[in-house]
Amino acid sequence: MTTFTAFCACEAHGQLMPKLFERRALRADDVAIEIAYCGVCHSDVHQVHNDWKNTVYPCVPGHEIVGHVTAVGPEVTKYKAGDRVAVGCFVDSCGQCESCQLGQEQHCTGGATPTYNGKDRVTGETTLGGYADKIVVREKFVLRVPDALDFQYASPLLCAGITVWTPMREHGVGKGTRVAVVGLGGLGHMGVKLAVALGAQVTVITTSPSKAEDALALGAHKVLLSTDQKAMMASLNAFDFILDTIPKRHDVNPYLMLLGRNGVLCVVGAIDLLDPVHGALLIRNNRRLTGSLIGGLPATQDLLDFCAEHQVLPQCELVDIGDINNAYTRLQANDVKYRFVIDMASMKGMQVQ
Amino acid sequence: MTTFTAFCACEAHGQLMPKLFERRALRADDVAIEIAYCGVCHSDVHQVHNDWKNTVYPCVPGHEIVGHVTAVGPEVTKYKAGDRVAVGCFVDSCGQCESCQLGQEQHCTGGATPTYNGKDRVTGETTLGGYADKIVVREKFVLRVPDALDFQYASPLLCAGITVWTPMREHGVGKGTRVAVVGLGGLGHMGVKLAVALGAQVTVITTSPSKAEDALALGAHKVLLSTDQKAMMASLNAFDFILDTIPKRHDVNPYLMLLGRNGVLCVVGAIDLLDPVHGALLIRNNRRLTGSLIGGLPATQDLLDFCAEHQVLPQCELVDIGDINNAYTRLQANDVKYRFVIDMASMKGMQVQ
Repeated sequence: MTTFTAFCACEAHGQLMPKLFERRALRADDVAIEIAYCGVCHSDVHQVHNDWKNTVYPCVPGHEIVGHVTAVGPEVTKYKAGDRVAVGCFVDSCGQCESCQLGQEQHCTGGATPTYNGKDRVTGETTLGGYADKIVVREKFVLRVPDALDFQYASPLLCAGITVWTPMREHGVGKGTRVAVVGLGGLGHMGVKLAVALGAQVTVITTSPSKAEDALALGAHKVLLSTDQKAMMASLNAFDFILDTIPKRHDVNPYLMLLGRNGVLCVVGAIDLLDPVHGALLIRNNRRLTGSLIGGLPATQDLLDFCAEHQVLPQCELVDIGDINNAYTRLQANDVKYRFVIDMASMKGMQVQ
Repeated sequence: MTTFTAFCACEAHGQLMPKLFERRALRADDVAIEIAYCGVCHSDVHQVHNDWKNTVYPCVPGHEIVGHVTAVGPEVTKYKAGDRVAVGCFVDSCGQCESCQLGQEQHCTGGATPTYNGKDRVTGETTLGGYADKIVVREKFVLRVPDALDFQYASPLLCAGITVWTPMREHGVGKGTRVAVVGLGGLGHMGVKLAVALGAQVTVITTSPSKAEDALALGAHKVLLSTDQKAMMASLNAFDFILDTIPKRHDVNPYLMLLGRNGVLCVVGAIDLLDPVHGALLIRNNRRLTGSLIGGLPATQDLLDFCAEHQVLPQCELVDIGDINNAYTRLQANDVKYRFVIDMASMKGMQVQ
């Protein structure tokens, strides 16, 4: 067993505070990682606040993890001490079902093991995430961070990045694809950058004129104000793929209308009921409304490699771990462009009970 | 100009009655057809009743038309007098847009010209449908009925058949595909027969145990009662493709739950708002909710050829044109298995004002 320090919540709506934990000894196929950076995802806040009524306390959030390998189990072949690695939203899965066999572990029939607030498949213990100085993860669920990719920028790719990358690849976004991105937060801003890098024609659809400048700065080619009825009507059938990152209940019909034949609207944020969809909008143009859940290990590695090669970098705001509670408050007020990343060096020398 | 007899409605909720009309002289690329049979589609009833607030009276419905060629214009090359032919839901389109170029004329950007209650693209006159002894249609929009396909069975393929065929082909239904069909009417029964003929494993999902026997008689391999919560829960992730033929507002969530990874639920009947869809059901398994609108000319010809080759025949009830008003009443009460087809020979010798 090894001692490590992590920031955890001990009760719903409690503050995150540092605490000492014991990590399991390395299993044969385990990789021990010293964490350098960990991104802050909106689901961290939901989990800490027990919004989904399933949080096990103490809860250590964090699933956008990057760092260096410090030790490996005897059967590990891909990594050695010193390697630059990453861990995303899950740390294990059954390995047997069709989804696992296809490298789409996020859809593991029995459920992949989440990086935090999951249940270790061997011991049944609650998994603890990346707001920590160390983590131990099965080799198979560890990804390689290319040298050309700065650690802090790699971090948000592990959840925000892969969430938007998977559906764009699945639905063939590439050169000339007419893409719209709805919502310009952690996910949306990565959607714009990745779609542009893939060669798509990218429009940001927003309710607020104030976001137009930001959208163009991120590389979007156009901005469409959803409050401008005339502009919306002029954009009927104008898109092949719409990435909808709105994180709550909303009306997708005004966006569905903008899809051409076989066009796809993909919801990645709203894990809630959507307002009633009009069947005729689906039938006309054979439009498709779908969702997408993060991404499998091969797709995540592809994304890291792509971003390294094309230098597609998330826009991050670095925070010290001691400022995490303030960062949560700001995140809930949408006061971040576009992703908080915790610099784990700030944990060093911290006094822990 | 040629005189012909057709059954028409002269006002909303009026009875259909015979009337003499004048048909245009043949244009260079026109085919004149003597109609043998015409299927009765639920949209005929909606159009006659002005449910969509756009009916032009007198209205001659009917877009499941089969018959023999009687004459052709000078530029017609594919057909000659005596040929067995069919006409479906549209009789013209722009021919220029991408959809038309791809043979998906139903999605013509400017709108394909419906077989009835449309506007002739040359004269602007209202198009008149197949409850008639004759029709004149542009060669491009005329299909060939293989000799092996009985006329009366060919008729419902032109709308009910193609409506379910298109999405099954588009989404790769074939050998071993796990297909469910929801709703067992004109569309649903063709869905079962065609999916079985394509080699799929077919389940009918129904609310009524009384339909189980019918479903199996049509070739379905299983029946799933949607009122049986235990059976529904045991069918989570059990289907690759669900054909939803329910013709009105309903809740698709219980069906979405049954889809496996990348599974598709295709709505072909409900041109109405659907009950709120849960975003998490779309995100989990990357499920897809889509719609599909009839089908293009190449797909419709494929369907006719496939049904001739495999003797996939709709289950029809033949009616005389003089009984059409009674047939409408029965159709609205779902009292038909599964498609009324008008035997146009019954029009012969009819007294018309």
